[in-house]
Amino acid sequence: MKNLSELNYGIIGLGIMGGSIAKAIRTNILSDKSNGKIYAMDKNLESLYAATDSKIINKGFLPEDTKKMLSLCDFVFICLYPHATLDFLKNNSKNFKNDAIITDISGVKALLEKEYDSIKPQNADFIFGHPMAGGEKEGFSASKGEYFLNHNYILIPHSNNKPENLSLLRELITKMGFTKITETTSDDHDNKIGFTSQLCHVVASAMVESAENTEITSFGGGSFEDLTRIAMINAPLWTELFISNKEKLINHIENFKNQLSIMEELISKEDKENLTELLNDVRKKRIEMQKR
Amino acid sequence: MKNLSELNYGIIGLGIMGGSIAKAIRTNILSDKSNGKIYAMDKNLESLYAATDSKIINKGFLPEDTKKMLSLCDFVFICLYPHATLDFLKNNSKNFKNDAIITDISGVKALLEKEYDSIKPQNADFIFGHPMAGGEKEGFSASKGEYFLNHNYILIPHSNNKPENLSLLRELITKMGFTKITETTSDDHDNKIGFTSQLCHVVASAMVESAENTEITSFGGGSFEDLTRIAMINAPLWTELFISNKEKLINHIENFKNQLSIMEELISKEDKENLTELLNDVRKKRIEMQKR
Repeated sequence: MKNLSELNYGIIGLGIMGGSIAKAIRTNILSDKSNGKIYAMDKNLESLYAATDSKIINKGFLPEDTKKMLSLCDFVFICLYPHATLDFLKNNSKNFKNDAIITDISGVKALLEKEYDSIKPQNADFIFGHPMAGGEKEGFSASKGEYFLNHNYILIPHSNNKPENLSLLRELITKMGFTKITETTSDDHDNKIGFTSQLCHVVASAMVESAENTEITSFGGGSFEDLTRIAMINAPLWTELFISNKEKLINHIENFKNQLSIMEELISKEDKENLTELLNDVRKKRIEMQKR
Repeated sequence: MKNLSELNYGIIGLGIMGGSIAKAIRTNILSDKSNGKIYAMDKNLESLYAATDSKIINKGFLPEDTKKMLSLCDFVFICLYPHATLDFLKNNSKNFKNDAIITDISGVKALLEKEYDSIKPQNADFIFGHPMAGGEKEGFSASKGEYFLNHNYILIPHSNNKPENLSLLRELITKMGFTKITETTSDDHDNKIGFTSQLCHVVASAMVESAENTEITSFGGGSFEDLTRIAMINAPLWTELFISNKEKLINHIENFKNQLSIMEELISKEDKENLTELLNDVRKKRIEMQKR
């Protein structure tokens, strides 16, 4: 089996996610003296300079030098928006190093799944992935190597993925700090992420929209603040995610609105008994989730 | 003007809020050697013992000794549920020490406002208040003196409140760690708290209810967890708060559902331009709130 510290890593897109992956690899896998190197491609020269100056990456590449960089990389993390990930794979299917392992971080998988045959690199192994970490910050300057500690990772293996490559990716992910790796299908991923991530962003955004003004936070005690932190949202990215997963997301919004209406009716009817019972169930369910 | 360290404080109900108030007074206002004392009334003997053993309070009283305790207290914090607060005031209107300052922490004020004339103590000054701090924990064991650092406090002065008493309460609140004190009316309080606090608890609860099962958190990246932490809810308390403020709360739920529907339609129509614009507005509004 390959030794992670002997490999060269390529990061496509050095934003908060790509930057954090590079830092986690530098901290946990590659020392200055390792044979393996970290390369990154980004259109933002400033990020590339910051990452080389701080010795997070060994060398930065601009988009026009992508082919050159890919020829060096045994492990490639594509850290782009969903449609850009699709385009990148289409444009570079023949540019990967022989036997390289390619993975992505896209928050919606249907796009990639639909075009799987046309994006599958012929001489490399593309394993769909999704590190479940995010925040309201953006860019390389917001990235950090400890970002992934105790977070979840989702892998979507395909029948043609080599078992040894999947094992190596799992080893790498674990060393980066992720504690729980779940394997599933693209369809199940999109459905569950539509709930845990996308619906939450819709809800937080709708909550901020329904605030009468920004002064309302003088009346805040933490609930509103915690609930809406994710509404400091990256608008173009989330527009793309919401629309790319619209059927599943709308289904979740409808279910959620139904639950709201059930509570609303109990409140309206002053049905103390059933409202208390419902809230007790909610409490138990949420505490059970906390334990996981 | 009275000196805060010379006064005796009475805490009615030594749960997480009453306990935190006692601890904040002990840490920031009364040393072991101060003339002023802290007394607490609770039906839970264990909490009273824990608070006396740790020298947070000087003496504990059971409900049957309330009258005795009140006769000693210059400052009384009623830390009970809304209806219990109302009952306590009705039953003890003649038991307060002369010129005492009485305040409450009730999350809904209409109940008290409606019966103001019947609950107003004749020889003491009752000032409506609401410390804006809360959490998913309960009981004296969860209380802490630093609980209020950088939190908001709402005061609802009435025309008969003495200005010097209001000033003294503001001084006390500030020393306890609260950084922003806002004065308003009961009606405005209930409307705004209906949004920042109650609507958030309804939304978090509905979100947990709409989760297909507790295993969904394997797919969580933090958003769902942050948004639903407050769903580890104290069911009887929040049932009472929701129903006591039902008209304003239902109005907020309706507004929120409308905002959800607006977003849902943009997603459904794949209206990227307007969805991105809306999310950009949300982001700006939320960042503006963060600055406050």
